[in-house]
Amino acid sequence: MSSTGLIVDRGLEGVVVGSTLLSNVEGKIGRLTYRGYDIDDLAPNATFEEIVHLLLFGQLPTSDELDHLKREISTRRMLPEPLIDGMRRSPKTAWPMDVLRTVASGLALFSPVNRVGEHVSDAHTAIELIAKMPTILAAWDRIRRDLDPIEPRNDLSQAANFLYMRTGKMPAEIEAKALDTYLVLLADHSYNASTFSARVTASTRADIYAAVTAALATLEGDLHGGAASAAFNTLLSVGSPDRAEIYVRDALGRGERIMGMGHREYRVRDPRARHLEAKAKELSAYRGDSRWYEIARALEEASNKVLKETKPDKSIYANVDFYTAPLLADLGMPGDEFTCMFACGRIAGWSAHILEQLGDNRLIRPQATYEGPPPGPFVPIGSRPTTAH
Amino acid sequence: MSSTGLIVDRGLEGVVVGSTLLSNVEGKIGRLTYRGYDIDDLAPNATFEEIVHLLLFGQLPTSDELDHLKREISTRRMLPEPLIDGMRRSPKTAWPMDVLRTVASGLALFSPVNRVGEHVSDAHTAIELIAKMPTILAAWDRIRRDLDPIEPRNDLSQAANFLYMRTGKMPAEIEAKALDTYLVLLADHSYNASTFSARVTASTRADIYAAVTAALATLEGDLHGGAASAAFNTLLSVGSPDRAEIYVRDALGRGERIMGMGHREYRVRDPRARHLEAKAKELSAYRGDSRWYEIARALEEASNKVLKETKPDKSIYANVDFYTAPLLADLGMPGDEFTCMFACGRIAGWSAHILEQLGDNRLIRPQATYEGPPPGPFVPIGSRPTTAH
Repeated sequence: MSSTGLIVDRGLEGVVVGSTLLSNVEGKIGRLTYRGYDIDDLAPNATFEEIVHLLLFGQLPTSDELDHLKREISTRRMLPEPLIDGMRRSPKTAWPMDVLRTVASGLALFSPVNRVGEHVSDAHTAIELIAKMPTILAAWDRIRRDLDPIEPRNDLSQAANFLYMRTGKMPAEIEAKALDTYLVLLADHSYNASTFSARVTASTRADIYAAVTAALATLEGDLHGGAASAAFNTLLSVGSPDRAEIYVRDALGRGERIMGMGHREYRVRDPRARHLEAKAKELSAYRGDSRWYEIARALEEASNKVLKETKPDKSIYANVDFYTAPLLADLGMPGDEFTCMFACGRIAGWSAHILEQLGDNRLIRPQATYEGPPPGPFVPIGSRPTTAH
Repeated sequence: MSSTGLIVDRGLEGVVVGSTLLSNVEGKIGRLTYRGYDIDDLAPNATFEEIVHLLLFGQLPTSDELDHLKREISTRRMLPEPLIDGMRRSPKTAWPMDVLRTVASGLALFSPVNRVGEHVSDAHTAIELIAKMPTILAAWDRIRRDLDPIEPRNDLSQAANFLYMRTGKMPAEIEAKALDTYLVLLADHSYNASTFSARVTASTRADIYAAVTAALATLEGDLHGGAASAAFNTLLSVGSPDRAEIYVRDALGRGERIMGMGHREYRVRDPRARHLEAKAKELSAYRGDSRWYEIARALEEASNKVLKETKPDKSIYANVDFYTAPLLADLGMPGDEFTCMFACGRIAGWSAHILEQLGDNRLIRPQATYEGPPPGPFVPIGSRPTTAH
């Protein structure tokens, strides 16, 4: 070990690596704020577009500012035709997150370059990426179902327009509002793994397309944005509310975790879970089919009950991913697109964090201890032992 | 500030965030080792394929193992046709790193999926990515010049095959060897920014395609892999060796840095610079045109001279990017493809680090202090002040 630096937890748990003006996660009291506004106020009162303005420009917008932003978003939704063609020529079995990451990365190819290798990384490029993300997802959702993509409308919100592009039908008010609330709740969460990843990428002075691509790459894992898909798979496995307790006992008995339960930052229930749960409940009532919502409720109750018996000192609560599953399922979305929907919300936070990083940059380049063999002589090819593969 | 964690340097400079068996950077004495083998021994004695084996499988290969690995690499070089078509339909002005990142990400779409959203992240997938990276670069290099891509040959080394795919001609031995040495030298470098980025991505249990895509995104910035392109732009600006000193005085006088000089980890000259310099010198003699090499030499000497006068207590030496510029320029490569060539070497280290991370994983998820406004009441849209954009 040649490194002589400060040694910290290798998951950086509890290690403060920077600062931000954008959001604050107060895990002990279960409070999440965006620039000082409590998510409990924002979820029922603000739209996703207002949150985009808050994160990118520092304040909630006036009516004029909001109109202006909505116009800019709606005029930037269309994708370059070659990228849609690329999706058409891709195997229908391709995973939606792979497609979203690849096509989002490909937007850079169609963007003007400021100087060699550097696109303009500003709020307008951020808005372009925010605007286009749901278009990519909806287009792939249709292409994989052998349907033609539907062009975005410029008179709808991000949430309503996405649902329209998926089905070709105007969504009900309650559906658009449920998705809008989801996007508000998912918009930012301090230095989560994908946001930190975006900041690491931006810290080399890479541009916003590169940094968003890195964030998309990092979101997919089931310890992060992939957890909602995994939570939905759990709902599928459980199958009905009355099977929740036996499922939980089996899973915990095998040492497995219940996907969507627990969060590194929160010691109480994730403040986003309550709002998502309420929206999932409303939606299921509207649809007249509360299956997913009921299974999720039963699963959370069973988890709490069984954990209280087995680990009375340990509290594990539903996180944001847990009620995402019934909510998005009740909007008609397939489980393997949930992580993509997460990206359509978090892109607001990612881009604001990237601009914050680029605005006062320092290369993020840590050290590692070396724990391999000590320095030794080179061994010519004729004298080497066979490798135990 | 609600965070109560350990506060560290926000660039993580000198902060040890993990361990590795793969490589060791000893910045004070200027030593770089891969699994205990000194780069000074490896650069003249080992090929890139041997380094791939060393990094992925833990040992330098026997002759049989090397033959086996070379066969596997050579049979995995071809790209899916839709990805080549996607390049053909992209604007010729697209930046090569954007294309490389997008197409490498797109390989995931054509890869079998193990289970929902998870490709097999193993040494064979790593070899596939290592094999295909130069094919993507060479194909784009030709497409942007309005030429047809040339199919890879399966009887050539990674270095020789790349040069062949660019030009359609067999490279001279000295050219292939120079590029091979470059790839050996660039193959790994502990937790550099792109490798750390790959590990952050993998730590969410994202797969190897995602993690390599994140690394490619992070490499592009000019504080990292983009520096060699920037160093070449400097050679272009200097124009001739006799103008080096005045260039350095002007640049340092304006408070600018000389691209390719200095490295966060090294207090002496980067050990890779010596080998690259020697290869650049050999190549320039072979070509009978030593312009780029002579300018680089003059620039390094002038930097040392002027820095000794102005900052006698500060030592700044050439880093790996500095002699990359004359070397790759003398291989006929355009400056905006240098970062892509870096990726063709570093992919060996990235993939080994990703497998190391996945093999003993812990989510990398730091904290940040919040420095924005304190919690306050929600303001309805009619009562908001105009934002100062």
